[in-house]
Amino acid sequence: MINRTNGRWAVSALATLLLLPALLVAQDVLPSWNNTAAKKAIVDFVAKVTDENSPDFVPVADRIATFDNDGTLWTEHPMYTQMAFAIDRVKALAPTHPEWKDQQPFKAVLDNDLQALSFTGQKGLVDLVLASHTDITTTDFEAVVKEWFATHRHPRFQQPYTQCTFKPMVELLEYLRANGFKTFIVSGGGIEFMRPITLGCYGIPSDQVVGSTTKTKFEMKEGGPVLMRLPEIDFIDDHDGKPVGINRFIGKRPIASFGNSGGDREMLEWTSAGEGLSLKMLVFHDDAKREYAYGPANGMPDTKFGNFPQDLMEEAEKKGWVVISMKDDWKQIFTFEK
Amino acid sequence: MINRTNGRWAVSALATLLLLPALLVAQDVLPSWNNTAAKKAIVDFVAKVTDENSPDFVPVADRIATFDNDGTLWTEHPMYTQMAFAIDRVKALAPTHPEWKDQQPFKAVLDNDLQALSFTGQKGLVDLVLASHTDITTTDFEAVVKEWFATHRHPRFQQPYTQCTFKPMVELLEYLRANGFKTFIVSGGGIEFMRPITLGCYGIPSDQVVGSTTKTKFEMKEGGPVLMRLPEIDFIDDHDGKPVGINRFIGKRPIASFGNSGGDREMLEWTSAGEGLSLKMLVFHDDAKREYAYGPANGMPDTKFGNFPQDLMEEAEKKGWVVISMKDDWKQIFTFEK
Repeated sequence: MINRTNGRWAVSALATLLLLPALLVAQDVLPSWNNTAAKKAIVDFVAKVTDENSPDFVPVADRIATFDNDGTLWTEHPMYTQMAFAIDRVKALAPTHPEWKDQQPFKAVLDNDLQALSFTGQKGLVDLVLASHTDITTTDFEAVVKEWFATHRHPRFQQPYTQCTFKPMVELLEYLRANGFKTFIVSGGGIEFMRPITLGCYGIPSDQVVGSTTKTKFEMKEGGPVLMRLPEIDFIDDHDGKPVGINRFIGKRPIASFGNSGGDREMLEWTSAGEGLSLKMLVFHDDAKREYAYGPANGMPDTKFGNFPQDLMEEAEKKGWVVISMKDDWKQIFTFEK
Repeated sequence: MINRTNGRWAVSALATLLLLPALLVAQDVLPSWNNTAAKKAIVDFVAKVTDENSPDFVPVADRIATFDNDGTLWTEHPMYTQMAFAIDRVKALAPTHPEWKDQQPFKAVLDNDLQALSFTGQKGLVDLVLASHTDITTTDFEAVVKEWFATHRHPRFQQPYTQCTFKPMVELLEYLRANGFKTFIVSGGGIEFMRPITLGCYGIPSDQVVGSTTKTKFEMKEGGPVLMRLPEIDFIDDHDGKPVGINRFIGKRPIASFGNSGGDREMLEWTSAGEGLSLKMLVFHDDAKREYAYGPANGMPDTKFGNFPQDLMEEAEKKGWVVISMKDDWKQIFTFEK
């Protein structure tokens, strides 16, 4: 087809190729978003920072966008996906750990007693993750994570966890990348739990995933070198840890940040403190019918995972951070929805 | 020109655009390299991993290449560039630290006594870096680093340090990227000392720079949030630290790694241990005339910076790691050479 003597087709193909980014913008972008203020805030922001004639123009190299994962890019109820994995793994490892029968938080897990588990608090969660995610090489751990994702489903939606991503947010990631942004995950979740699935779920490669880490140790074994995962926290990528992690891993301040809980507050503050225009958004879970509803902001139920306090709502209001109502701003939440 | 009715020009432009990667390979690649075994090893490796019909084919997402910086991408003599910076900064800060006059390693720096400085060893170097790189916000430190690079020159070459990069290695970075590789720096140097210059010097953005780090702390000041650099080592990205850093920051094993000293050994071993074909190369400094000559391998002088021991030479020989002779394999070393 390229060889038509008239040449008009080829000229048009060349033009299309060169104008592709512009065409992507001109089409109906973000189709799973309703035409509300949230979508308008995104499209207006992107128009300004990508327009060379705008005073808000930002060069491509500085178009950094950071996204929390749990509750921002995928569902985090009835519990963090990584916690479901940790529970399953503790059960799988229990035969080699007879002492866990009488020891919290393991006893609670083995007894399927989620209430007793919740009483072990933050320390219980950390103990659970350390016991279930370490004393294994990084290569073997990756295989365990992949196997778990391939064989487990979300208890309510009965879909693989990798399908429980929010379609509007995946569209947003793609839209930003089509406009020259580099997109990063900045999550409190374990970096090596997320990496096996982020490319498939979000189009985000492993080196653009910032998260919590355990220490690892290089060891020379008979079959060659390995990295052993040690039962020792290296870094918690939450609250103050998010700006610290952004600085350590990315080395540039984002101009757009997206979260959904109190743990994302410092990341949004850090983004705001940069020079020039920036976009800060918080996903608010107010749709019990299609997903979940929790706060405790705006009178929503107060739950264990993804706390969105009232004072965060007030800070957002005061500072012009855009709160996304899942109920009102999203036409469709999941790809698997009818 | 696009609108010529004949259309041949447009067709040719389109074809050129689509075939650009292939054309880059077909032309005389790596022009600053002599046509020796080292260049052939690179070109053959790239041909195999990029050929979909080759058993050694590697998908683009897995084409990860890691480069040490000091002595591999730029000159590290008569001392590491970061050490020259630390010395200058200690001198600049000395008026506010009267106690340094009688305290090593600072006394040695203020007395311009490089021999006494060398006696303070690794600990002296760390103390120097901590004292000169911390108690400052990340934003202010970046400005200090940029200012230093803009105003200081290499003592022998009388060029800005950012010009003291090895032209053949910069060509290699570009060649790999043109073939779908993602290129990373993995250096023992301080991550925030390198980041201000890596895009300009190497085309490597800040988030693709792995290095040693000090701890930072998020603080809310009157003017907004800052990250303070603390006088505490977070991570040393050298020897075993290189595979650890690669795993933490990149999350994938490289298929090509480039170093020049004993500190790069574990990175090359880690690269070798992956499945499939990989390329490991070591720059050997044997050209005192155009750059520097040091080992102590192969009877070269034993110096303080960039130690290449004899057993590394033997390991390279045994395992098929390619040793690059600067003297024999590089047609031109610096851009500023006549």
